[in-house]
Amino acid sequence: MQKIAIGKLAILLASLSEEELNLFKPDLAQVSYCQGKVGSMNMQKVIAAVETAAKRNGLIHDSLYRETHALYHAILEGIEGLTRGKPAIGEMSRTVGLRFSVVRGTPYSESGEGEWIAVAFYGTIGAPVKGAEHETVGLGINHI
Amino acid sequence: MQKIAIGKLAILLASLSEEELNLFKPDLAQVSYCQGKVGSMNMQKVIAAVETAAKRNGLIHDSLYRETHALYHAILEGIEGLTRGKPAIGEMSRTVGLRFSVVRGTPYSESGEGEWIAVAFYGTIGAPVKGAEHETVGLGINHI
Amino acid sequence: MQKIAIGKLAILLASLSEEELNLFKPDLAQVSYCQGKVGSMNMQKVIAAVETAAKRNGLIHDSLYRETHALYHAILEGIEGLTRGKPAIGEMSRTVGLRFSVVRGTPYSESGEGEWIAVAFYGTIGAPVKGAEHETVGLGINHI
Amino acid sequence: MQKIAIGKLAILLASLSEEELNLFKPDLAQVSYCQGKVGSMNMQKVIAAVETAAKRNGLIHDSLYRETHALYHAILEGIEGLTRGKPAIGEMSRTVGLRFSVVRGTPYSESGEGEWIAVAFYGTIGAPVKGAEHETVGLGINHI
Amino acid sequence: MQKIAIGKLAILLASLSEEELNLFKPDLAQVSYCQGKVGSMNMQKVIAAVETAAKRNGLIHDSLYRETHALYHAILEGIEGLTRGKPAIGEMSRTVGLRFSVVRGTPYSESGEGEWIAVAFYGTIGAPVKGAEHETVGLGINHI
Amino acid sequence: MQKIAIGKLAILLASLSEEELNLFKPDLAQVSYCQGKVGSMNMQKVIAAVETAAKRNGLIHDSLYRETHALYHAILEGIEGLTRGKPAIGEMSRTVGLRFSVVRGTPYSESGEGEWIAVAFYGTIGAPVKGAEHETVGLGINHI
Repeated sequence: MQKIAIGKLAILLASLSEEELNLFKPDLAQVSYCQGKVGSMNMQKVIAAVETAAKRNGLIHDSLYRETHALYHAILEGIEGLTRGKPAIGEMSRTVGLRFSVVRGTPYSESGEGEWIAVAFYGTIGAPVKGAEHETVGLGINHI
Repeated sequence: MQKIAIGKLAILLASLSEEELNLFKPDLAQVSYCQGKVGSMNMQKVIAAVETAAKRNGLIHDSLYRETHALYHAILEGIEGLTRGKPAIGEMSRTVGLRFSVVRGTPYSESGEGEWIAVAFYGTIGAPVKGAEHETVGLGINHI
Repeated sequence: MQKIAIGKLAILLASLSEEELNLFKPDLAQVSYCQGKVGSMNMQKVIAAVETAAKRNGLIHDSLYRETHALYHAILEGIEGLTRGKPAIGEMSRTVGLRFSVVRGTPYSESGEGEWIAVAFYGTIGAPVKGAEHETVGLGINHI
Repeated sequence: MQKIAIGKLAILLASLSEEELNLFKPDLAQVSYCQGKVGSMNMQKVIAAVETAAKRNGLIHDSLYRETHALYHAILEGIEGLTRGKPAIGEMSRTVGLRFSVVRGTPYSESGEGEWIAVAFYGTIGAPVKGAEHETVGLGINHI
Repeated sequence: MQKIAIGKLAILLASLSEEELNLFKPDLAQVSYCQGKVGSMNMQKVIAAVETAAKRNGLIHDSLYRETHALYHAILEGIEGLTRGKPAIGEMSRTVGLRFSVVRGTPYSESGEGEWIAVAFYGTIGAPVKGAEHETVGLGINHI
Repeated sequence: MQKIAIGKLAILLASLSEEELNLFKPDLAQVSYCQGKVGSMNMQKVIAAVETAAKRNGLIHDSLYRETHALYHAILEGIEGLTRGKPAIGEMSRTVGLRFSVVRGTPYSESGEGEWIAVAFYGTIGAPVKGAEHETVGLGINHI
């Protein structure tokens, strides 16, 4: 019933190298997407980085709250995966170094299902000390 | 400082097709791993499926609680991403259809950092109605 | 910027008596809504009661996952208020007796903002013993 | 068994207009209450606004920790509804604009049940951008 | 300002041996308390065991919801410590073997602060496999 | 199967007086441990106090992320008990005054189970007002 796996594409966009992504070019041609990077101890900056990238690349309609709302909840869901249930970083003495992606497309064959948005994060989370970190991943999906 | 991205490998093992995985064979040769599938409205079954696969494939030492403990917390972290902060499925009227992987390896160049374990989930989560579901991803990482 | 307060209407529909609601008839005429009741120690039954009422009364399009998804997340948000951060009832030895409402409308003056849905709960939560309970309220809102 | 619905009164005090509240004057005469407003990206300010209003209006006994404790937990429960399980605002890039109320009374017919306190919030939550927000509600109840 | 540490006494009652407790007899003489044991994969049974012990030993007034409410929230807080933020056991494939205590007393010098209740748990949490478990502790405190 | 209760020892180290601890000297001789104090409205300071004490007293290997990771998760689990599910203090207008301990040892008879670490907190949590606080306890345990 799903013809395009926007979540999988989002994860790949956030975690693969340019070269590795070549394999998935045909699938990527079927969706709109953007990629970005952010490193911070401040969750507000992570959220802002994704929102700004999504707007600048025309993935959401800038002045419609409806679209901002869909994106915001997809970001929050991605952050839950990233932080595994404790959506706080700096306060908990953690820092993140992330690549992220936003994918917009029509995953379902049924045309009435319309557009959906996926936000993926891949990178590291850890103590604010070089090397004291491990990988982390998050994915959020919403109808838009 | 990280020479092998066990989290990325785990995510790819859970989400890519056999064919797509070919590209990553050289990296996979550097770690131990297993893959599995589980579909359920019952989180206990999801946890048991991963634990059983990990034991059967020799990824954790069956009779050491120490290793069971490391795996269990990696599974729980993966479930947080999967359920985005509400680690309940059946009770919240949701069902999951998942592929999962367990990867064990030595991600850091510094030999003292020893072995780590990654658990990844990729699949769908949704209402217990055909088609009423979207993608979901979870990743947990722990020292072992 | 908001011309209709669908959240407030949902709360009133769930908590006021028939007579008290008369005062709000003009506002209610501007939205679609339904009301229902459910008492249970089982959250799945609470969710099912709202979903069934919403479908039966034509508040969501039965066969579109997109609309089911919007409603489901609004229900979950309402449940967070209801259970105040611990979305479990029976397992935590609690029972709920609830009136609920679903309201669908166009809250924003800007037509591009389209339709939104609100789910409200009002009733009691407590021990499974007559009288050992107090009031509880929950509201969830989503774009649809 | 409940003769006065202090939770419902608290919700109405926070969400209705002066005029709409007239209908509920007889019920309000049976309880002590206060109303207030607060807008912030900082949860500490929201908590302080309610605590200050409750003290200033004599709803809790200023120098008794016992009463402060009862009020604080009722506020926290209200915040869970408000933020739907993620009791953070500024860090998650959200701002709230709220009306709130505190109601103190004797909801149960049985005199031994004594006094209880209800804290309600009604207003908007959203991005720190004009118009990018929707309604939100929270209610907490505690024995005092 | 606190003359009796009811929380500390509760923790000691749940974790020390009969013999070790002798040292604290003078302090214990200043409060009312009971002790109990429960082992389960079912949180409802843990809650019921504490409630039943507290009622049977006259630590709470059986027919007053006010007291049941105070105890219930103290139990819930203890469970948060026990399960460290995921108040589910069986569903998460965990079992607990616990000793618990309920202490009621007047911890503050100021007489207006009245009575408070403490609930403590000490024991093991782990996989439903002999030996695959580690220690866990939880404490909840409430005014009553 | 457990020969040394490192969790119980950690709790006692954090909550008993010097004199009371004398009773437990024989057990304490079997483990490595340190004790410390911290008072703050800032969780980052609480985490840093424990990490610094553990490093300074040689309880974890300073330059191994593996050990920092084990300690960090034990601290986080202790904080869940401390804050009972809402790992925020200052933002929620709370302050803590804590004694803490870190215990490292080999709790299991089976030598393959190796070393484990326990982190315990005992003290008060409350409003940033003298006297407006009650006791709180937290314990985290991890393999190391």
